[in-house]
Amino acid sequence: MSESRAEPAAPGASFEVPVAFADPQYREAVVDLLGVIAYGEISAFERLVEDARLAPTLEDKVAIASMATAEFAHVGRLRVRLEELGADPFAAMAPFREAIDRFHEHTAPADWFEGLVKAFVGDGLADDFYREIAAYLDADTRDLVVASLEDSGHAAFVVDRVRSAISADPRLGGRLALWGRRLMGEALIQAQRVAADRDALSALLAGGVDRPGLDLAAIGRMFTRITERHAARMAELGLAS
Amino acid sequence: MSESRAEPAAPGASFEVPVAFADPQYREAVVDLLGVIAYGEISAFERLVEDARLAPTLEDKVAIASMATAEFAHVGRLRVRLEELGADPFAAMAPFREAIDRFHEHTAPADWFEGLVKAFVGDGLADDFYREIAAYLDADTRDLVVASLEDSGHAAFVVDRVRSAISADPRLGGRLALWGRRLMGEALIQAQRVAADRDALSALLAGGVDRPGLDLAAIGRMFTRITERHAARMAELGLAS
Repeated sequence: MSESRAEPAAPGASFEVPVAFADPQYREAVVDLLGVIAYGEISAFERLVEDARLAPTLEDKVAIASMATAEFAHVGRLRVRLEELGADPFAAMAPFREAIDRFHEHTAPADWFEGLVKAFVGDGLADDFYREIAAYLDADTRDLVVASLEDSGHAAFVVDRVRSAISADPRLGGRLALWGRRLMGEALIQAQRVAADRDALSALLAGGVDRPGLDLAAIGRMFTRITERHAARMAELGLAS
Repeated sequence: MSESRAEPAAPGASFEVPVAFADPQYREAVVDLLGVIAYGEISAFERLVEDARLAPTLEDKVAIASMATAEFAHVGRLRVRLEELGADPFAAMAPFREAIDRFHEHTAPADWFEGLVKAFVGDGLADDFYREIAAYLDADTRDLVVASLEDSGHAAFVVDRVRSAISADPRLGGRLALWGRRLMGEALIQAQRVAADRDALSALLAGGVDRPGLDLAAIGRMFTRITERHAARMAELGLAS
């Protein structure tokens, strides 16, 4: 953990009165963050169920559908917290629909294995990114965000299916490695769009008078960490990154 | 409850040794029943998520997706019980895929409201039918079946949306009433196909040496009850049946 990943100014005892929320820009940033995570999960749910159609067996289909429903199960708590913050949950999600929908349009899997890699790598990237941001939040929000990112517990299934397919057909490994890079590239493009549009979210990372933030070097280190974890996930699947 | 809906011969104390399962045909019928319910729920899940795309708002979409995931959540327990019975859960589902897939192909909703009515009426019909059959099962299996049919708790949402749409556009009511009849007709056609194909399931309803069954008059009464409940559901939506 680098020295710039300081604890947030407000420790946030019980949820009802976290001091941090006295700053309207902080509240706005949290509403944005919960909104983008919630829409990301709704959207991932839909796409996973759609991609499950490509499953070679009913058992594989049910495994992917289980990942999808685990993802969707997090939405409820995010919605409740958004309401507690006085926000309309669906209005909070709205600004992020275009970027997330575009990510999915540009990364529609051509087959079952691309779908599996997307589920594993795409989900992992989003989780890493939100976990990084969570370090700058009050304790309650941080706990909620981290709980929302809990592994759906189906990663072993994906790793097993992808690794055995690659060992049966090594050319598939080359194609899926390229696919993994495309997923990473598209995620960065859309994250960049969101950062450019949403001042409060960007300001959260930049810090405030009473809140430490990230300087350019720290942002660089954050992206290095995210890239390293992406490479580790690709390696877990038996793919070059 | 009519006199023909007798308790099953075996009271089924703890699950490990329900006497009823000594009869291989009874076991086969239960495997069939759990298989058809499980595949029906997986399939309903997929179609509901697909139909959710027609939702006019993100909030409506999330409401339908919640119905879908509640449905899917039942599959796990059915799978476990099938394994306890020594059956491969996916092999148990296989014989029912064609009839259930065909039902969905023939009842693809043309718009959001047809999707809502299908979710409410289709689910209700399946529940009524399985509940009728459950009366002929050992207590453990009956409890499992009834728990699998638990209302997803979103019926009020559907009723509200459909009723207010009809009051805004009365012609919609006429179209949806026809749609409800088509759903009922298609469900009966596919149920008939399944009954003709699956001897063990049909034998369960017909009874055995030590197990009371349904005579023709009782089957007639069963269909009368199912039809009446269908009419009640249509009325709840504000539709003629």
